Amino acid sequence: MRGGAGVAQRHPDAAATPAGPTTGGLPDREAGAVLGQYLREEATAFLRALAPREGEPGRPQDDTAETGRQMRRSARRIAGTLHTFGSLTDPGWADPLRGELGWLTDTLGREHRYAARLGRLIGALQRLASAEDTAGVPAAPLPADDDLGLWLPVPAAPDPAAPPASLPEPVAAAAHAAGSRRSPAPPQAGERGGAGGGPLAVGAARAGALLERQLTLARTRAHSAALQAMGSSRFHAVVDAVAVLASEVPLSPAARKPAATVLPLLAEQAHARLTEAAAALPLTRARHPYNGETLHAALTGELPAERQDAAWNRVRVLLRLRRYTQEVLAYDDGESAARLAAAARVLEQHREAAEAAAAVTAAARTPRIAPATAYALGVLHADQRLEAEAARYAFAHLWTR
Amino acid sequence: MRGGAGVAQRHPDAAATPAGPTTGGLPDREAGAVLGQYLREEATAFLRALAPREGEPGRPQDDTAETGRQMRRSARRIAGTLHTFGSLTDPGWADPLRGELGWLTDTLGREHRYAARLGRLIGALQRLASAEDTAGVPAAPLPADDDLGLWLPVPAAPDPAAPPASLPEPVAAAAHAAGSRRSPAPPQAGERGGAGGGPLAVGAARAGALLERQLTLARTRAHSAALQAMGSSRFHAVVDAVAVLASEVPLSPAARKPAATVLPLLAEQAHARLTEAAAALPLTRARHPYNGETLHAALTGELPAERQDAAWNRVRVLLRLRRYTQEVLAYDDGESAARLAAAARVLEQHREAAEAAAAVTAAARTPRIAPATAYALGVLHADQRLEAEAARYAFAHLWTR
Repeated sequence: MRGGAGVAQRHPDAAATPAGPTTGGLPDREAGAVLGQYLREEATAFLRALAPREGEPGRPQDDTAETGRQMRRSARRIAGTLHTFGSLTDPGWADPLRGELGWLTDTLGREHRYAARLGRLIGALQRLASAEDTAGVPAAPLPADDDLGLWLPVPAAPDPAAPPASLPEPVAAAAHAAGSRRSPAPPQAGERGGAGGGPLAVGAARAGALLERQLTLARTRAHSAALQAMGSSRFHAVVDAVAVLASEVPLSPAARKPAATVLPLLAEQAHARLTEAAAALPLTRARHPYNGETLHAALTGELPAERQDAAWNRVRVLLRLRRYTQEVLAYDDGESAARLAAAARVLEQHREAAEAAAAVTAAARTPRIAPATAYALGVLHADQRLEAEAARYAFAHLWTR
Repeated sequence: MRGGAGVAQRHPDAAATPAGPTTGGLPDREAGAVLGQYLREEATAFLRALAPREGEPGRPQDDTAETGRQMRRSARRIAGTLHTFGSLTDPGWADPLRGELGWLTDTLGREHRYAARLGRLIGALQRLASAEDTAGVPAAPLPADDDLGLWLPVPAAPDPAAPPASLPEPVAAAAHAAGSRRSPAPPQAGERGGAGGGPLAVGAARAGALLERQLTLARTRAHSAALQAMGSSRFHAVVDAVAVLASEVPLSPAARKPAATVLPLLAEQAHARLTEAAAALPLTRARHPYNGETLHAALTGELPAERQDAAWNRVRVLLRLRRYTQEVLAYDDGESAARLAAAARVLEQHREAAEAAAAVTAAARTPRIAPATAYALGVLHADQRLEAEAARYAFAHLWTR
């Protein structure tokens, strides 16, 4: 995707990098030259991703999604780098471009986001409505001479408010600990759903249909909006600005200073913003499993959840900026790139789960839905908030370890 | 409650016990004598708990709950001990008594269980519907010069399927990590529930009212049933049998063997049954937080969840039996009593949460409930299944550590 020299320079093995403590392995160049090279390469990648759409009509249809992905990828990197190293570029030019790239990334990415959200929710519904007992009860049935049942007061009790408990059946070698939380179980809903299982399974199916309808509609609209955006003069203005960037980056006078002096300082500021924002997260609480934080106030509306989520989203964005500085500086600056990447993935999961939960709540506000549908949506909402909590847990353990 | 000598003998400090490896600290008595002493004491405690109900009408009303609790406590111990050390007693006499004590414990305990279940669910609903942000976002609002907002693609995006995100507000010193999952937050539902919060808060309130109605009805019925049971000839027959036990325990010939020979062996068998049942639990999976096991198949009906829960309940009962053997043997047999007690508490939490979740599902089957109510019940169901999962997690860490 990028020039061979650039790749070799930007992704060296840590062991192969002769990184001194002061120069940090940065070449003896001007800051603007290093920054400019990165921006030019990303701008070129952006334009290259755009090109086939206009110039190669023979490409398979599937490639449009990949095209959009690559464009967004480069647009995020350009915008993020202009943010972090803003003092080295002409602000009158960089700031508007940054905003326009944000608009572009959002507009082009929305269709993908709705599709991913639908896939996530349908998968979760299948897991919640799958009758297959992946959890597994490897225990043998109670032996006949072990008449605990006589003494067991609870399961044998006829309960007017709940259906009677059933004795454990021998479950044929269901591997315990099989399958992770995310693995969608095969959709066999209702197959074994004995007394009373019917309505719940119907509710799950209807909830799935409702979500599919709403999110497919949203996705279709997002698709139209993206197509419209790509035909707009606003889009072409952004492309023109990126084309300028691909040939020459408008720099400020500060960019003439040595790279080894200026760039690590700005990267350090990005790092400080990240660590400060992450330290402000309730990580101590998040480190405790099952803290119930994400479900707290789940029934009062979006507000408390969104206020929580916003702080985590901010860290997600700052983490992304931090990773781009590593790419610009082209050396391992002491922070493990693998750790940052893992943390970014986890926070991406957090965002997706939180947004999916909000979409479920929105679906539950649809007028005239059946109670069973609403019930299934309630379970699904809690499930997705729980995924968000699991992501916070994972992040807290990654970050504070 | 029991004779001073008995207490001193049965609960010695571990350090003060001159426990040899063979006698295990058991006195040089017949097995039947040691077993008989324990059973006589528990039978006496049972009768003493029953006495005030008939003999002291001047006692305050609140004491009836305590009376029932003490009766159940002794009845469980007698039945459990007759189970574990059954070979030492006359089976034609012990087995029917054990069954009758199980009936009694269940009948007398049900009112208490419904009351506890209602309290648990109302507390959970308050937590889920509390607008107070106990989670806390100690982060300051985004500084004005940090215009990440321009670049943040997601929260700023107008989303047709969800209300627009709000910026994080400064939350006044909300202590992070404050409050555990269980602490019910103050009921301030709806106070801050901004756009769209209304219907959800109403749903939570209606779900609470529905559960209160159903569980209060069940509790009232259980109360009547308990009163009726205590006036029945069946109840008086149980009391008579316990009265026999308080004076003389019908033993089998095997009870004449030395206590140090027989009792540890039977206790060891109870221990083996417990460890075997616990080892058959999916503990490896339960040790992973957020494994999603308890929510799996939540929308197919009770069956898979009950099959899972039954295995855990069986361990809960075997754990109880195991603890009673420690009381009978009156010495610390190597297994930490504190650890067993902690594990028992955790499994009791598991049972309560699982039963509460089932009660929520039953409530959701009420005809003609509003969708918002059903949605709230769905969230509440998932919340309680999650409590069950948290209990499994705690047990797995207690047990396999």
